[in-house]
Amino acid sequence: MQELAGTSIIGFSRGESRAESQQGFNPTTNETIAPLYYSATVEEVNRAAQLADQAFATYGRKSGLEKAAFLRKIAENIESIGQPLADRATSETGLPVGRIQAETGRTCAQLRLFADLIEEGSWVDARIDKAQPDRKPLPKPDIRSMLRPIGPVVVFCASNFPLAFSVAGGDTASALAAGNPVIVKAHHAHPGTAEMIGLAISRAVKSCDLPEGTFSLLYGSGSEIGTALVKHPLIKAGGFTGSRSGGRALMDACAARPEPIPFYAEMSSINPVFILPGAMKSRRDEIATGLHGSVTLGSGQFCTNPGLVLMNDDGDAAAFANKLGELMSSSAAFTMLTPGISSAYDKGVGAKLKASNVKAIAHNDAEGKCQTAAALFQTDAATFLENHELSDEVFGPSTLLVTHSSREQMLEIARNLEGHLTATIQGTEDDLREYADLIAILENKVGRLLFNGFPTGVEVCHSMVHGGPYPATSDGRSTSVGTRAIFRFTRQFCYQTFPDSALPAELQNANPLGILRMVDGRMTKESV
Amino acid sequence: MQELAGTSIIGFSRGESRAESQQGFNPTTNETIAPLYYSATVEEVNRAAQLADQAFATYGRKSGLEKAAFLRKIAENIESIGQPLADRATSETGLPVGRIQAETGRTCAQLRLFADLIEEGSWVDARIDKAQPDRKPLPKPDIRSMLRPIGPVVVFCASNFPLAFSVAGGDTASALAAGNPVIVKAHHAHPGTAEMIGLAISRAVKSCDLPEGTFSLLYGSGSEIGTALVKHPLIKAGGFTGSRSGGRALMDACAARPEPIPFYAEMSSINPVFILPGAMKSRRDEIATGLHGSVTLGSGQFCTNPGLVLMNDDGDAAAFANKLGELMSSSAAFTMLTPGISSAYDKGVGAKLKASNVKAIAHNDAEGKCQTAAALFQTDAATFLENHELSDEVFGPSTLLVTHSSREQMLEIARNLEGHLTATIQGTEDDLREYADLIAILENKVGRLLFNGFPTGVEVCHSMVHGGPYPATSDGRSTSVGTRAIFRFTRQFCYQTFPDSALPAELQNANPLGILRMVDGRMTKESV
Repeated sequence: MQELAGTSIIGFSRGESRAESQQGFNPTTNETIAPLYYSATVEEVNRAAQLADQAFATYGRKSGLEKAAFLRKIAENIESIGQPLADRATSETGLPVGRIQAETGRTCAQLRLFADLIEEGSWVDARIDKAQPDRKPLPKPDIRSMLRPIGPVVVFCASNFPLAFSVAGGDTASALAAGNPVIVKAHHAHPGTAEMIGLAISRAVKSCDLPEGTFSLLYGSGSEIGTALVKHPLIKAGGFTGSRSGGRALMDACAARPEPIPFYAEMSSINPVFILPGAMKSRRDEIATGLHGSVTLGSGQFCTNPGLVLMNDDGDAAAFANKLGELMSSSAAFTMLTPGISSAYDKGVGAKLKASNVKAIAHNDAEGKCQTAAALFQTDAATFLENHELSDEVFGPSTLLVTHSSREQMLEIARNLEGHLTATIQGTEDDLREYADLIAILENKVGRLLFNGFPTGVEVCHSMVHGGPYPATSDGRSTSVGTRAIFRFTRQFCYQTFPDSALPAELQNANPLGILRMVDGRMTKESV
Repeated sequence: MQELAGTSIIGFSRGESRAESQQGFNPTTNETIAPLYYSATVEEVNRAAQLADQAFATYGRKSGLEKAAFLRKIAENIESIGQPLADRATSETGLPVGRIQAETGRTCAQLRLFADLIEEGSWVDARIDKAQPDRKPLPKPDIRSMLRPIGPVVVFCASNFPLAFSVAGGDTASALAAGNPVIVKAHHAHPGTAEMIGLAISRAVKSCDLPEGTFSLLYGSGSEIGTALVKHPLIKAGGFTGSRSGGRALMDACAARPEPIPFYAEMSSINPVFILPGAMKSRRDEIATGLHGSVTLGSGQFCTNPGLVLMNDDGDAAAFANKLGELMSSSAAFTMLTPGISSAYDKGVGAKLKASNVKAIAHNDAEGKCQTAAALFQTDAATFLENHELSDEVFGPSTLLVTHSSREQMLEIARNLEGHLTATIQGTEDDLREYADLIAILENKVGRLLFNGFPTGVEVCHSMVHGGPYPATSDGRSTSVGTRAIFRFTRQFCYQTFPDSALPAELQNANPLGILRMVDGRMTKESV
């Protein structure tokens, strides 16, 4: 195991700046962890961007097989770190070792899923419209097109997924799979984990004989180094998972560039859960138990954490609130990822405690800088509708029950929702039919709609959509999880009347890659 | 034929504002054309947006068959206008009747191409990952996803395509095909044509029993009515074809909204043509003749007009310039679309005439408010590289020849190009091999690369990409022409563990629509 150096990884060299520094922090013991991590300088940002731009000329033209071998090598290198990675990640994040192991597995599985996708190759949406030289009044030219990589991508790590949404996380995997060099901005919540993974990628770049600038990892603050990265003219897109204020600032910086670039930010979501009458009648305690598990999973530090629960104001609601309140009260204290997240959670809980017409059903105190307790609040629909701040995300093990006295009130709450990643219906099939209008509203408010499940636990697969209308994300057309995420970092490109030999393999007559293509409007693997 | 009223079409009613007005103008006779066209008010913008939002709840859930019938009905209604449409459009634009007829045909063919696409239905990218209840450590839920419409779309008409990029043009067709209500902002260059087409769409909305707000057409200025439209909270996306300054202002307004929205602006492009040595040797005069045709087609008023030609500085270049100069000089005067476009062209030509080290090879004067003459200029690579303003688009029948003295100088020009819609290589197959580095540079600069053709004449087909990196368009990932344009106005949406009966037909087990779907990663039309 290589010793951690505490410096940025800029292509094949290391950052030399010794200016600003930050240090890893163990939220369980409240101790700092060596080494010091030094912020990159603007010159180092510039060097990483130039290397990435140079690398793009080569890496952007690698075949699916070559890129897949690289992704697999990254996964292998990550797995080979073994215990030191689990040790460092658990100590930096306070997350249990089982979670870190599962997340490492997910991160590697994700890299291999993208490897499978690009090895197969059909994802490029190859299209061929054959020439018709005799068409009247004008001949039709031969036109062929496919998706191509967009250019160097900057990826911002999330605090709450030190592996799966971090240095080798979803955005990095999809950007590399599409053929884009990546510059990662590390998160100060897990600098050592970031360096270990960064070095694993770096070794894979070397052993796969890829150009130096294919990957860099920079340390530093989001407002300085992050902003410098997204404003750099050689950067062509960005991916971000974090706070709404941070995401919006970077979105605005991208849109205000002389050449605006796409920026995919995942920001905030309270993931409303609607408990419909039939389900409440038949599965009240089961739903309370499931909800408790989902609200407190990972200390509630998930973007899909259900922070709002809607239900009819009746006797079942009271019994449900009691049951959930008991479960929340009896939960052990939670270790949060960072002192900042812990104090933000306390502040959010404090605001609910002070809000009028909001009742605290469960709320304990917790001792220690990064320790918190679960909190459960309840209010009525009228209060909720009048007080927009009750919709604010409280990042942690807390949720808000809202009781409504009529179907119309529930629909009004649904109509007033901002964009969220998910919404969940707890209901019977009869409920679903009866509340079709609710479903129709929610389809325009979220990216994923669940029936009788809980929103935490995002499956990594072809059909997953982890996105949603603003402010859940900056761009509700897209997903950050699943193979469709590869489309984020691509552009459509067209060749007209090109000789076969000058075309990419995906568009050549013989279809040497054997991919599925659209030929004159028909999907086929045949040659043309 | 219904008489033209000169007012906006707001759902099933007409605008009542009598404030600001503009009038059609015949650039051939320099006469205004009745009636007066009254600008919409902010209240009318608001009403159109509210109607569109209401309509979305219904129209967004129509089947592919229902939407296709609507698109076909629009095409039929446009065709049934016949001679009055050709008369009005030719008199408002100065374009010859043959061009108007061809463009009407293209507009209707485009509507029918989208109708075919949505009737077939596979475009929604339906994906199903089946449940695995026994998976360890956690069961895998059933997840299904597809593309859904995004919401009310505002479409800005272009001056230079009174039909194909106007009221029922590409953006309208793709937005409606995807299931989005459309509000069109008419262009003052052809208000009567816009009203005729708007009424044709309106009649189709009624006869297909679609909700009132499915379509509206508003008159007024881009800076007022256009800005009010893109800032309206109920508008969810926009499409624009026009100037760089106008497009950028609207892009910025969309990005600065509390809820930013996607805005697809096609703005400016000079479509460089590279004549490589082999082609120059073997087809010099043929290329000059083809280029003359492309530069002067439609009075040069195409976004794909080739405004920059690069070639080796040798004897062939001189002969080529002479030949092209003769053709340009002997071209008859051109009628431009509007007095504004005509004077902007004169200004652009005037700037080139005054530029040092730029030689006017062909340049005549033209009489009349909207009359212009073809213009051909020549300069050397060093001058071109030093004077950025020589790259400015001159919208009209003009082009600039740039001679370079080395391959490296040509590559430097290519590397310094901004984003354009197209680039063209005139070359032999040997040239292509020898200049692979040039091709690699151009792939990152444009959306469509042509070999031995000319960029004007954009084929409407599945594989077309009519887009390009900024500032050619606001979003270089996308196309405004061809069936891929339907992706502009959609978002990915996911259902988790939904009962079959509550799913859209596209995602139901039986695959009742018989579409191609990705099931557990495999493309199939089978049921699950």
